[in-house]
Amino acid sequence: MEEKAVTVHWEALKGFCKRVFLRLGVPPEEADVTAEVLVEADLRGIDSHGVARLRRYVRGLQVGQMAPRPKVTVVHETATTALLDGGGGLGPPIGRKGMQMAIEKAKETGVGFVAVRNSNHYGIAGYYAMMALAHDCIGISMTNSAPLVVPTFGRDSILGTNPISVAAPAGQERPFVLDMATSVVPRGKLEVYNRQEKSIPLGWATDENGVPTTDAGRVLANVATGIGGGILPLGGADEELGGHKGYGLTLLVDILCGVLSGAAYANLVYPRNEAGRPLPANLGHFFAAICVDAFRDVDAFKSDMDDLIRRLKNTPKATGQSRIYIHGEKEFEMAERRAREGIPLHPKVVADLRAVAGEVGVQWLLD
Amino acid sequence: MEEKAVTVHWEALKGFCKRVFLRLGVPPEEADVTAEVLVEADLRGIDSHGVARLRRYVRGLQVGQMAPRPKVTVVHETATTALLDGGGGLGPPIGRKGMQMAIEKAKETGVGFVAVRNSNHYGIAGYYAMMALAHDCIGISMTNSAPLVVPTFGRDSILGTNPISVAAPAGQERPFVLDMATSVVPRGKLEVYNRQEKSIPLGWATDENGVPTTDAGRVLANVATGIGGGILPLGGADEELGGHKGYGLTLLVDILCGVLSGAAYANLVYPRNEAGRPLPANLGHFFAAICVDAFRDVDAFKSDMDDLIRRLKNTPKATGQSRIYIHGEKEFEMAERRAREGIPLHPKVVADLRAVAGEVGVQWLLD
Repeated sequence: MEEKAVTVHWEALKGFCKRVFLRLGVPPEEADVTAEVLVEADLRGIDSHGVARLRRYVRGLQVGQMAPRPKVTVVHETATTALLDGGGGLGPPIGRKGMQMAIEKAKETGVGFVAVRNSNHYGIAGYYAMMALAHDCIGISMTNSAPLVVPTFGRDSILGTNPISVAAPAGQERPFVLDMATSVVPRGKLEVYNRQEKSIPLGWATDENGVPTTDAGRVLANVATGIGGGILPLGGADEELGGHKGYGLTLLVDILCGVLSGAAYANLVYPRNEAGRPLPANLGHFFAAICVDAFRDVDAFKSDMDDLIRRLKNTPKATGQSRIYIHGEKEFEMAERRAREGIPLHPKVVADLRAVAGEVGVQWLLD
Repeated sequence: MEEKAVTVHWEALKGFCKRVFLRLGVPPEEADVTAEVLVEADLRGIDSHGVARLRRYVRGLQVGQMAPRPKVTVVHETATTALLDGGGGLGPPIGRKGMQMAIEKAKETGVGFVAVRNSNHYGIAGYYAMMALAHDCIGISMTNSAPLVVPTFGRDSILGTNPISVAAPAGQERPFVLDMATSVVPRGKLEVYNRQEKSIPLGWATDENGVPTTDAGRVLANVATGIGGGILPLGGADEELGGHKGYGLTLLVDILCGVLSGAAYANLVYPRNEAGRPLPANLGHFFAAICVDAFRDVDAFKSDMDDLIRRLKNTPKATGQSRIYIHGEKEFEMAERRAREGIPLHPKVVADLRAVAGEVGVQWLLD
């Protein structure tokens, strides 16, 4: 059946995803947050992390890589910190629990930190960082991820695209929400170029010998087989444009998420058993909440945030440019538009969602 | 007088700097740490932040931009956080005090955070982050700085090179010490290219119209007059190679150091009075210490750090490359060599130090 692009209301899309998770044995609350994190990505225009990923979560649940009803345990706890074991469950419920704990601790003591081990893909990092905003806290969220990134001067991809998100509240202006892979681009960007048969810019990825390449398809194939090469850290292939800095940030995220939590790290994530069957990914996350009023009056902070944001937005533009953005601004605008106008779904995504619906036995929205 | 390059023992160089600061009214303990931070930079091979900067500190003290005996006050304090006012003093003593407080709080509660306002240039960010290592804590140190960096799509430099340093202990291996400007390069790198009359790579800086340029001299002159242009954030001029990510990191540092502390931020740092005389820079710093044992057994953490480091170092190399580095490794090796063989000083630096010695009335080492 030839699918067409369609546009769907976010609530309908979330309801569909939730029903899929329920059908696969995920309890209602956990199904709800997992659906919410996926659809929130689509709302914000981060389509690579939205419902296009539903298939991978479904597959994870089907093959036992993700537990529908995991035993989540608090391994260690102090007034300011906690270590959670996610029991190999879905990433979003574990992530939300971790960030909630960090916020609760911050409201008691000023700051709260929660490291998580034995989790799975948690969606967009920004979802969790933004949870802190309503509490007038600065939120931090990081995760390690599948090995796709080569260290500076290395040939093989043994680090993740390891995103960092930091959210800070403002007053009249929208909050600052940085949400970035520490690689120059995420894998999704290579997939887009590959589909369009376009050359990628030199500086995004290397081939199986560790040499920069413009061939996205080759990189994706190489990464899939593990033959060598991969995506470059922010700053590119060498030290000239600061690739060692991006590599340092990627490694930092792995230390805080993987090593500090006792999760897997580097290319130890996404293990398989002897028969080649995927085991729980054993990803690690790191969450922090820092209450503004532990340092300074909240209104004074917000007023200065507004001034800083306006100062940047009103500064003269480079030749040919008309607008300076603050981080999160594009995504907030997109979310407002898509909440109003619906979420556009690519025909391939529609086909995929319809197939998932058929497989697990729930009704697709457009039948 | 024509100076020659010389090599000096670090202790002698530190003693000289200390005597200069004492002569300018700085108390012994503060003179000692300021000298130590400068010479530590030279030891680690970060010559741009070493004794070559003594002149600027001396000038800051002479014109009243830096107070020799500031009143440092604790403005706000909780069990986990503090806000310090540096009283416009020298950055290194204030920075060390801030990091010490963060470490003390972390030893009590697991984590400690100290924001600092009304400070000055504090030298290498890594000095403070590394203070946490002896306590089996992860150390974080950031500072905002003079406006040299253009936001993505902007024409003017209104953000600092705003460095981030994070240090994490390992076991048998050397610790991880990331210490990076969030710009693609620091100003010192442009100065080196300018002296050698070499073109800088496209992607380092923009001209007065905000257009990428290879002319280092032009950029330095433009930045000095404020006519426009400046250094680019990590990732370059636009979004293709992730310049918006580097810009986001630069902005993040300004939020944590400038806004959260109530210090100056963006192009409000380094104010001048009506007569054009420099006032205290009102820089802000942000320090954190996170104790490993608030999450996980320290030995288990260190053992995994060793494994992660070895895994990276032993991974296959890209064609033409022979070694993969961990952050801090080059600097530790340089510090060992320079502690043994002495610190080489450029003839211009020698001339400068000799002139400072004459001005303030202390003996230069080589007379």
